[in-house]
Amino acid sequence: MSAYEAAPAAGSTAAVPTHWYNIAADFPEPIPPHLHPGTKEPVTVEDLCGLFPRALAEQELSTERYIQIPREVRSVYGIWRGTPLIRASRLERALGTASQIFLKYEGVSPVGSHKPNSAVAQAYYNREEAITKLTTETGAGQWGSSLAFAGSLFGIDVEVWQVRASYESKPYRRYLMELYGGTVHSSPSELTEAGRAILESDSETTGSLGMAVSEAVEVALKDPAARYALGSVLNHVALHQTVIGQETIAQLARLGIGHADVVFGCAGGGSNLAGLSFPFLREVLMNKAKTRVIAAEPAACPSLTQGEYRYDFGDFSGMTPLLKMYTLGKDFVPDPIHAGGLRYHGMAPALSHAVHLGLVDAVAIEQTTAFHAGILLARTEGIVPAPESTHALAAAFQYLAHSDRAETIVIGVSGHGQLDLPSYQGFLESYQPPVG
Amino acid sequence: MSAYEAAPAAGSTAAVPTHWYNIAADFPEPIPPHLHPGTKEPVTVEDLCGLFPRALAEQELSTERYIQIPREVRSVYGIWRGTPLIRASRLERALGTASQIFLKYEGVSPVGSHKPNSAVAQAYYNREEAITKLTTETGAGQWGSSLAFAGSLFGIDVEVWQVRASYESKPYRRYLMELYGGTVHSSPSELTEAGRAILESDSETTGSLGMAVSEAVEVALKDPAARYALGSVLNHVALHQTVIGQETIAQLARLGIGHADVVFGCAGGGSNLAGLSFPFLREVLMNKAKTRVIAAEPAACPSLTQGEYRYDFGDFSGMTPLLKMYTLGKDFVPDPIHAGGLRYHGMAPALSHAVHLGLVDAVAIEQTTAFHAGILLARTEGIVPAPESTHALAAAFQYLAHSDRAETIVIGVSGHGQLDLPSYQGFLESYQPPVG
Repeated sequence: MSAYEAAPAAGSTAAVPTHWYNIAADFPEPIPPHLHPGTKEPVTVEDLCGLFPRALAEQELSTERYIQIPREVRSVYGIWRGTPLIRASRLERALGTASQIFLKYEGVSPVGSHKPNSAVAQAYYNREEAITKLTTETGAGQWGSSLAFAGSLFGIDVEVWQVRASYESKPYRRYLMELYGGTVHSSPSELTEAGRAILESDSETTGSLGMAVSEAVEVALKDPAARYALGSVLNHVALHQTVIGQETIAQLARLGIGHADVVFGCAGGGSNLAGLSFPFLREVLMNKAKTRVIAAEPAACPSLTQGEYRYDFGDFSGMTPLLKMYTLGKDFVPDPIHAGGLRYHGMAPALSHAVHLGLVDAVAIEQTTAFHAGILLARTEGIVPAPESTHALAAAFQYLAHSDRAETIVIGVSGHGQLDLPSYQGFLESYQPPVG
Repeated sequence: MSAYEAAPAAGSTAAVPTHWYNIAADFPEPIPPHLHPGTKEPVTVEDLCGLFPRALAEQELSTERYIQIPREVRSVYGIWRGTPLIRASRLERALGTASQIFLKYEGVSPVGSHKPNSAVAQAYYNREEAITKLTTETGAGQWGSSLAFAGSLFGIDVEVWQVRASYESKPYRRYLMELYGGTVHSSPSELTEAGRAILESDSETTGSLGMAVSEAVEVALKDPAARYALGSVLNHVALHQTVIGQETIAQLARLGIGHADVVFGCAGGGSNLAGLSFPFLREVLMNKAKTRVIAAEPAACPSLTQGEYRYDFGDFSGMTPLLKMYTLGKDFVPDPIHAGGLRYHGMAPALSHAVHLGLVDAVAIEQTTAFHAGILLARTEGIVPAPESTHALAAAFQYLAHSDRAETIVIGVSGHGQLDLPSYQGFLESYQPPVG
């Protein structure tokens, strides 16, 4: 009666990739360097070491193709990885598509999203360099709770500036950060010069990721035992997330599928889509596959579809290095949409570079369209996707509605939306199921 | 760079057991029969058919050892099963134990608990018999949301009576039920005779699972196209949950571990612990293993440790068959503890029988102790367990604190507690980490 293939026991790391994949090794032209905000020269590892531990500063500038995942990080990944790749056959029937849809589902992690893939790595490298405190920003709270979780495992205090719009509308994620032992402030706060300056000019601001970054960076720079941790945008964050795409390729191969035709992911800062798509793009760059990659961004914060590709700061107050990226401008404050994790003015330089080279296309999705896609997924496959992830679903559904091909589609579902259920409530009344 | 063993793609059913295990085939003496509430004679399949579809009525009384899981049910299980078996090495270090701790984690299901294992099966069999509506009760909302999820996949309307204490304190689970298309009422309600009678005698009652069962049963019995679905207690529910224990045994075997010394699970109605432990008990009954099974129940609702083993009704108003079980009496209303899923006056007859035969021991856990166990798990392995599941953790931690043996311990973590984060808040201030 055991005539089935038991899943590998998690914690055994058998289902966890051994290396991260660094796309910087394979781009036909290099990613434009980050520039020092003072000198405007390319930043060095030394420049970055005040903000990050050396190992992460080195990863940020590395062009090594594969970087080994430390044993201890891999062991923590084993708590929830490999994550499921789900053939969504009920969703296919509801959409009336001839394509095969696979969902790569990161919502099974302890905090419910892909964010711990980098948080655990960052906490590890900081602990190795005797850092005892990490500061960070968070939008919806996914990144903040991931870093608080990782900090609790590696004995590091975590202090989080949460964008006010999310701090006020999503109290559960704050409780989660506090459960992991983290400290949470609403941003902008009175605790930093950056925060006080912003509040002075607009005390009613809903906040933004850019503002919260400024506050967290300011505090880290003033404390020699502290460093800053960023949950997206930078190369080393995208690097850590590549476990997602590597697993997906291996899982498809186990099913005898050697190729994905189109890969969809939501893109705010870019770490989720980078992590899912870069291992696929390696096959494209090696001329082994013709996979299309589509970035789904919110219409309320359309950096890829409406922004400029130029150097800009990663934060509101101009404390970070200058990054070459698609940007709406560092002082752009998006509407307080429910997908708080997508409210970022710029886009990861590595992903921006891939877009610039024509390796990745982008579409902007309206919030209502996104939520309706999420409701359809819930009612066909049971999974309640995070508001961020619903953008990828909606982009895929739009694509499939205009295609009669039978393709292999991969959709990154970056997290679950169980803490976002109040956000779904307002969209339920207007929902109409598709005519299949 | 693919030198790792990719997890089986979910949706492929490769990691899902092919059969449910029915412990009724292996008990040395039969489970005492359910009795008809009118005649006090053992119930027949026909008796049960007004309440349940025939296939489930047959399963309720079956003594067949293995019952094949229908292809369609197995396909839905494949969305999230096999669930992880996690070696909790960080938790072991925090506890300072020489034992190996494995967590069987059901929180990765779409609704976040083990409950869909039976909800999906029940919705399937009802759909097969052309039933278009299911009524049910729910405590914390785990079962109600599971049935709403299953109903949405099988085209069945689901109407849920949620215990008032949970309805008021856990709005997110109601939103979840509604997102799946379910209808939710606070119980006791004005919609049923049972509810009106209860409200008349105590309009301030916090409600109980027993009361909510009465309301749901009453509505199902009045509508020929409707049936009732129960999320625990009955034999067929325990049967469906045995995928949990079967997977655990196979996952341990993959790690070269042929035997678990002690298995812990929380027990409210009993379906979670039955599902985890019955496949282990089969090995005990075959004299192949000496596994101890420990039921962890809340001190506020101690049916196994303080109740009587006798015939009692499953509901408050006396509409269900009489069940031989450990019970606190059908009119027992437990305090509104956070673990709403454990607030049931009785205990599954099959599990009660196992306790009566000495195959399962029971301990009662105070709520504060349980939450502190949950906080420790969150801070060591990242997983935030459901308040129900924290009882199993606390029971295991107590056991390990008084044992210097090096054993293999399995703890069932029946669900995640992300929708219960406000409940954790009050216990955080008094939490002290163990001295490891």
